[in-house]
Amino acid sequence: MHKPWEGRFKERTEEFVERFTQSVSFDKELAFYDIRQSIAHVKTLLKAGILKEEEAKKIIDGLEEIERDIREGRFHFKVELEDVHMNVEGELIDRIGELGGKLHTARSRNDQVATDEKLYIKEKTVNLLGLLKGLRKTLVLLSERSLDLVLPSYTHLQRAQPIRLAHYWLAYREMFLEDERRFIRAYQSSDALPLGSGAVAGLDFPLDRFYTAEELGFRRLCRNSMQATADRDFILDVLYACAVCGMHLSRLSEDLILWSSEEFGFVDLPDRLCTGSSIMPQKKNPDVLELIRGKTGRLYGNLIALMVVLKGLPMAYNRDLQEDKEPLFDSLRTLEGCLMGMNLVLEGLSLRAENMLRASGGFSLMTDLANYLVQRGVPFREAHRIAGSITAYLLEREKRPEDLTLDELRSFSELYEEDALLLLDPKVVADRRRTYGGTAKDELLRSIEVAKREEGMA
Amino acid sequence: MHKPWEGRFKERTEEFVERFTQSVSFDKELAFYDIRQSIAHVKTLLKAGILKEEEAKKIIDGLEEIERDIREGRFHFKVELEDVHMNVEGELIDRIGELGGKLHTARSRNDQVATDEKLYIKEKTVNLLGLLKGLRKTLVLLSERSLDLVLPSYTHLQRAQPIRLAHYWLAYREMFLEDERRFIRAYQSSDALPLGSGAVAGLDFPLDRFYTAEELGFRRLCRNSMQATADRDFILDVLYACAVCGMHLSRLSEDLILWSSEEFGFVDLPDRLCTGSSIMPQKKNPDVLELIRGKTGRLYGNLIALMVVLKGLPMAYNRDLQEDKEPLFDSLRTLEGCLMGMNLVLEGLSLRAENMLRASGGFSLMTDLANYLVQRGVPFREAHRIAGSITAYLLEREKRPEDLTLDELRSFSELYEEDALLLLDPKVVADRRRTYGGTAKDELLRSIEVAKREEGMA
Amino acid sequence: MHKPWEGRFKERTEEFVERFTQSVSFDKELAFYDIRQSIAHVKTLLKAGILKEEEAKKIIDGLEEIERDIREGRFHFKVELEDVHMNVEGELIDRIGELGGKLHTARSRNDQVATDEKLYIKEKTVNLLGLLKGLRKTLVLLSERSLDLVLPSYTHLQRAQPIRLAHYWLAYREMFLEDERRFIRAYQSSDALPLGSGAVAGLDFPLDRFYTAEELGFRRLCRNSMQATADRDFILDVLYACAVCGMHLSRLSEDLILWSSEEFGFVDLPDRLCTGSSIMPQKKNPDVLELIRGKTGRLYGNLIALMVVLKGLPMAYNRDLQEDKEPLFDSLRTLEGCLMGMNLVLEGLSLRAENMLRASGGFSLMTDLANYLVQRGVPFREAHRIAGSITAYLLEREKRPEDLTLDELRSFSELYEEDALLLLDPKVVADRRRTYGGTAKDELLRSIEVAKREEGMA
Amino acid sequence: MHKPWEGRFKERTEEFVERFTQSVSFDKELAFYDIRQSIAHVKTLLKAGILKEEEAKKIIDGLEEIERDIREGRFHFKVELEDVHMNVEGELIDRIGELGGKLHTARSRNDQVATDEKLYIKEKTVNLLGLLKGLRKTLVLLSERSLDLVLPSYTHLQRAQPIRLAHYWLAYREMFLEDERRFIRAYQSSDALPLGSGAVAGLDFPLDRFYTAEELGFRRLCRNSMQATADRDFILDVLYACAVCGMHLSRLSEDLILWSSEEFGFVDLPDRLCTGSSIMPQKKNPDVLELIRGKTGRLYGNLIALMVVLKGLPMAYNRDLQEDKEPLFDSLRTLEGCLMGMNLVLEGLSLRAENMLRASGGFSLMTDLANYLVQRGVPFREAHRIAGSITAYLLEREKRPEDLTLDELRSFSELYEEDALLLLDPKVVADRRRTYGGTAKDELLRSIEVAKREEGMA
Repeated sequence: MHKPWEGRFKERTEEFVERFTQSVSFDKELAFYDIRQSIAHVKTLLKAGILKEEEAKKIIDGLEEIERDIREGRFHFKVELEDVHMNVEGELIDRIGELGGKLHTARSRNDQVATDEKLYIKEKTVNLLGLLKGLRKTLVLLSERSLDLVLPSYTHLQRAQPIRLAHYWLAYREMFLEDERRFIRAYQSSDALPLGSGAVAGLDFPLDRFYTAEELGFRRLCRNSMQATADRDFILDVLYACAVCGMHLSRLSEDLILWSSEEFGFVDLPDRLCTGSSIMPQKKNPDVLELIRGKTGRLYGNLIALMVVLKGLPMAYNRDLQEDKEPLFDSLRTLEGCLMGMNLVLEGLSLRAENMLRASGGFSLMTDLANYLVQRGVPFREAHRIAGSITAYLLEREKRPEDLTLDELRSFSELYEEDALLLLDPKVVADRRRTYGGTAKDELLRSIEVAKREEGMA
Repeated sequence: MHKPWEGRFKERTEEFVERFTQSVSFDKELAFYDIRQSIAHVKTLLKAGILKEEEAKKIIDGLEEIERDIREGRFHFKVELEDVHMNVEGELIDRIGELGGKLHTARSRNDQVATDEKLYIKEKTVNLLGLLKGLRKTLVLLSERSLDLVLPSYTHLQRAQPIRLAHYWLAYREMFLEDERRFIRAYQSSDALPLGSGAVAGLDFPLDRFYTAEELGFRRLCRNSMQATADRDFILDVLYACAVCGMHLSRLSEDLILWSSEEFGFVDLPDRLCTGSSIMPQKKNPDVLELIRGKTGRLYGNLIALMVVLKGLPMAYNRDLQEDKEPLFDSLRTLEGCLMGMNLVLEGLSLRAENMLRASGGFSLMTDLANYLVQRGVPFREAHRIAGSITAYLLEREKRPEDLTLDELRSFSELYEEDALLLLDPKVVADRRRTYGGTAKDELLRSIEVAKREEGMA
Repeated sequence: MHKPWEGRFKERTEEFVERFTQSVSFDKELAFYDIRQSIAHVKTLLKAGILKEEEAKKIIDGLEEIERDIREGRFHFKVELEDVHMNVEGELIDRIGELGGKLHTARSRNDQVATDEKLYIKEKTVNLLGLLKGLRKTLVLLSERSLDLVLPSYTHLQRAQPIRLAHYWLAYREMFLEDERRFIRAYQSSDALPLGSGAVAGLDFPLDRFYTAEELGFRRLCRNSMQATADRDFILDVLYACAVCGMHLSRLSEDLILWSSEEFGFVDLPDRLCTGSSIMPQKKNPDVLELIRGKTGRLYGNLIALMVVLKGLPMAYNRDLQEDKEPLFDSLRTLEGCLMGMNLVLEGLSLRAENMLRASGGFSLMTDLANYLVQRGVPFREAHRIAGSITAYLLEREKRPEDLTLDELRSFSELYEEDALLLLDPKVVADRRRTYGGTAKDELLRSIEVAKREEGMA
Repeated sequence: MHKPWEGRFKERTEEFVERFTQSVSFDKELAFYDIRQSIAHVKTLLKAGILKEEEAKKIIDGLEEIERDIREGRFHFKVELEDVHMNVEGELIDRIGELGGKLHTARSRNDQVATDEKLYIKEKTVNLLGLLKGLRKTLVLLSERSLDLVLPSYTHLQRAQPIRLAHYWLAYREMFLEDERRFIRAYQSSDALPLGSGAVAGLDFPLDRFYTAEELGFRRLCRNSMQATADRDFILDVLYACAVCGMHLSRLSEDLILWSSEEFGFVDLPDRLCTGSSIMPQKKNPDVLELIRGKTGRLYGNLIALMVVLKGLPMAYNRDLQEDKEPLFDSLRTLEGCLMGMNLVLEGLSLRAENMLRASGGFSLMTDLANYLVQRGVPFREAHRIAGSITAYLLEREKRPEDLTLDELRSFSELYEEDALLLLDPKVVADRRRTYGGTAKDELLRSIEVAKREEGMA
């Protein structure tokens, strides 16, 4: 087995070094992209007159055969050949002879690998965007289903004010919509073609890079050959988008784990999505949600890993960059699983309306008792103080706001009238939040309408 | 000193708790944005009929007076008042009396603080975009100055192929151009108004949030009150943009530190930008560059810090979010300093053309000896092997490529002709890289032209 | 104002560079340690015959005067003098004349700063160890107080098995005990003296470094002058210990935040440790706990920040290392606050025994119904399956285990006898966990006994 | 295929959930430890009278058979069985029938998995300690070999003072010695037995945990069953030790990469440890060193990943903890490779004495020209200023210190005598650094002596 670069070397590579430096065990994931690229490269060489029609055809045929073999599991990747590029090229030479050696004309692994990675990212990102959209649609459907469910919103994990459950799902939809923007940004970062940059300085062959870009579906060209081969920011952008989206999923998971506890009891997960305990027969654990929450760790870790690799790295390509692939593959795979898992959970959720409603009364209603006074001219700070005193009064007597009589209310302020007692109904209170983006029913209906239009669900 | 929320409380806050939970020692950085927001809020209350013309005027006058006092260093922030919001409001009440208590009507600190932060980010980001543009312009000017300087490009920190120095600066310009896109994205994340979302659920006052947005220069509204108060992704986007930009600066610093070593000797830093040693009289250290490189650490740390805060946080606002400010302020300040420092360094750099040229010959020329054969029909792999053998031949004899005679060349391949010897001049070789994005002089002239147009320098 | 190194420089330092590279704005925190070190250094110079008795006395007097002035807030640190070392030295020269210039003999800022940092860490670490011990004592006292309180333990945030509350506090005590070991390890890392290593290569003055170490209370010497000045691992060890301890505090905070929610209702925080809402009059928020949880972010961020600084840094001292100080100061200060805050919270906690007990019955008892069978010869897997079926049976009928009759039990297995019904009492069940480290009362009494002995509380 | 917990479940687990939650694809790495543990557990059950002699024997035989099959590659792990524990147990039941169901008596996967992990860590850590020792020995041997090689030490990547090369290797040895302490600390964290803690609360079977510990070679018991099952700090300690050690390797790599550049030319790597370029025939790249440097990224990433998982996790076991394994396995494997790689590189290094010596003269000698004056009574600051002026004088004339005549010297200070000229020889200068830990030959001989004794090499 010959190394592609052995000309100047006088010793065989130490076997440990072969194993330590090889990347084929993981970069074979790029095989299809590598072949797709090679075919475009061959066409470009043909167009430039560097290959003849017949040569090009033979090479492309060979590559397509190899692709088929890989797809059907008949291809054996060899560690001695270092990486996916040399495996494919080596095999090509074995199959079509010396002519195969022309494939690497006017190309370096430095521009080649960056091109593979970008092709890979573009395809995977589109896939993730689809999963994200699916999750958002599920949230919109859930919002419709839960428009009439009232539960407390929480701040500081203390009950704050009653909301309609739809409001909660729509909040997450907003976050996942922002994630879409982050992934589109990442896609765009990957939409500039490195191929044609050579090892570092550009090429002394008359290649039409615009033609290659068109063949491979890139909207732009990398405009500087050093940057094209030394930069991995397009991967950072993916890892960052994954990390933030994973963080959103971790927050949603946390809420749902809380809600499925006996203490909250707001939701039930179906048996088919839970696992049990090897020792406690009663357990039905929200493992999927816990794992989604936990996987935030690796999404963050992957981002930081590549950021550390890049820190202080001199120009241009350095072998350190080989460490970009495993975090990339892992983050994409991980997030894909998390999005699918979350979608399943949301689709399978049982909502326990009664428990929600029961929790949403009580002291969550106090803001409105204050605002009632404000709306009758009391300065906000004073009204807030009065409502605070009512709270203290009730707590001392172990009573709840719903127990208040008009007389009691009026003992705090003469401004309270009969209609103040209406504020002791959570639904009424929720529907008072009519500002744009608030939890009132009408406002939510409007928001759902908009969401459906945006998601193409109408 | 009254707490704004003390109504229901029966004990005084423990002093330690006051100190531990206060944020005014750092969030006073937001004071001007807070006041600007309050004025817009007052106008919105006026428009909604919640305040009367005269009330609004008095409050606004009071706020403007306070702003003036802060600007002139006459304002004393009090830790007992927790944060910048309560400091301003408390002072307002002290100055204009009970009427000041109406300022907080229809607002919570939850929507207030997010609004302050976004105003702050939008202003600071615009500033950073200006510094980034300045740095890119400096790189373009440097490119023009160094078009005729040839030096080796490096991969694996080994000399690779000769390039024109302009090519190197333009590579970094590309990276800083991508940073611009990241900061614009961060700006856009901050361009949605939270105010009007209340504590979590929206407001039961008829506020025209679109009007407020216009007053404050926001292009969009937050569309969901929970998301508006619970989300800090807009800060993550800033921290991420800072981290990646800092990483670019760390790479450029590393290169310049190497180049200013005695061993490379490619550049000289002016005395005014260096510091010396307290013990070694000869030392002139590139401290600015080292610090820029080192500060990548804190930029990464700040990003990870907030990502950790957000992981697994339940909805909606939690006090953990207070930990968002110090990383934000620190990253923006740090990057600002780094950009200014790098700009100064680049402007002050002396380029040592002779040392560069001397280093760019030798074995960096071997690729072209291979490609020479390719262009005469030898398959690339074979040509590469031949050039590898020439390398081995020279190394054994301790000779350099420049020493090669035509006869020696032809002993490796008959295809070498007289013109092959031209390839032993680095400038000639550099100018052979004519592909789009390559280092040939014509191509660089075109790239500089484009860059100048894009930067508005033409 | 003269720079200590200006001899070879021909230009004044650019003002921006002065500001950008200065460290005195934060390293003045090291002033007392710097002076203590200088006094020991002077004594060493005296012992080596480099200073005369009278000279040494004058310098020491001058240093002590400066220390007094700093302590009393009369010292003005100057940014132009870069750092704390040059500020002290500059002031010394101003006060005692040219003789002050002898202080820096046989010393570099490179060995000096590492020595300051280690002195600082050793003192702060001892302080933290005290706070940690205090927290553990509080946990032991809480254990005694809550020996008879039974609550459910949770896995997957689902009720698992009843435990005595003491068991829970002791679990955290174990973690904080491990933290002690981490801080002791960090202390030991800092217990090797760098002073006497010079800038990098050692010194050409006959200093007795063992004497200096004794004067300053170091147990060991750094054994290699390059490592002494280039290594910051001793700071990493502190930052790591802080990060892990902070993580423990974040977990405890999370539990207590959950427990103080209306849904759990297991604990109450006293008013004096909570803060309210600016808008919701009823709110009493566990801000201290939320902030402790949130501050994990910065503790992690500080660790990662310095790790990033050190990655790939060539030997020996580089200015990047100046970035070590702010994370160090911040982490120590942060953790100190968190430990104090958590201690206050634990001391102030009201325990709501009734709510705990109510939650600890029900399905948490199912494991014991399985083990009952195992102890009567049924293979564990079979017994587990039977108890699982009982669970399903109860859930279908919306009944709880406590409602089970003996007949019902026996319909699942004939092996159940009268005494099986005893297993429906959480206290009984808790006290069955008698293995070493289990939650049975006797075992807890033993554990508390051990803990008191270890903490010196007996 | 039955789930071990399916008793209470009414739906089949969704296939996606099976795949998403399974861990057997990676935790099979723990298989041997799991079986070793199970055997010890069976013996403990036997001792407690829970199993009969014959039962125990059959189970142990079955387990040993399974171990053999795994070792010989005949075992097929099944994803439907979730994890390594259930795969082994399931297979056992298949082989020995219902009796196999008794294996899980008095054990939960929660205490089981923590025990597996600790057994694994203890074994792997011992292995790493051996590799670390090997690397330190190589450094000591290199020190002996390179005692007479003089090169410049660098600070700020500027030449600082001449040192003997041995001094440099010994600096790194000190760092790797500290790593030993970190790994020993990590080992100790893993040296407390979790088994016998059950799922969370301890066990209601009379197990002798001390006996189990002895069987498995644990020095301590986990003293609290909640902490035993909820804590993963022992893994953090490993990941931290790996990260710091990796950072040391990244620094050493950076130096060696610099030194093997054409510009420095201090070392040569043997062909067998380098790889070439697919396009540049002359390239011989230090890939092993670059990869070692780059792998710091993943070592940091793994640490941060688990830290994030643990942040804010409530007590006790949560499924998030499953995310602890892949970072652990990866960090151990990665560091193992890096240590082996670095050792190979150091053993294979050619040292280019002449280039080193050439670089070590010149301005690196200026400190000693200053100290010469100090030793003749000039205050240090004044002497430093004089040597600075000499530097400026030489730079202006483009001369080097070696060119100085006595007359020139005396024009700066009358105190210079003939012997000052001796200071212009780097070896002489290096040997003047005689303080403990300095670079003088005698001191290095002593240090090497100590090192050899400590490493057992004498």
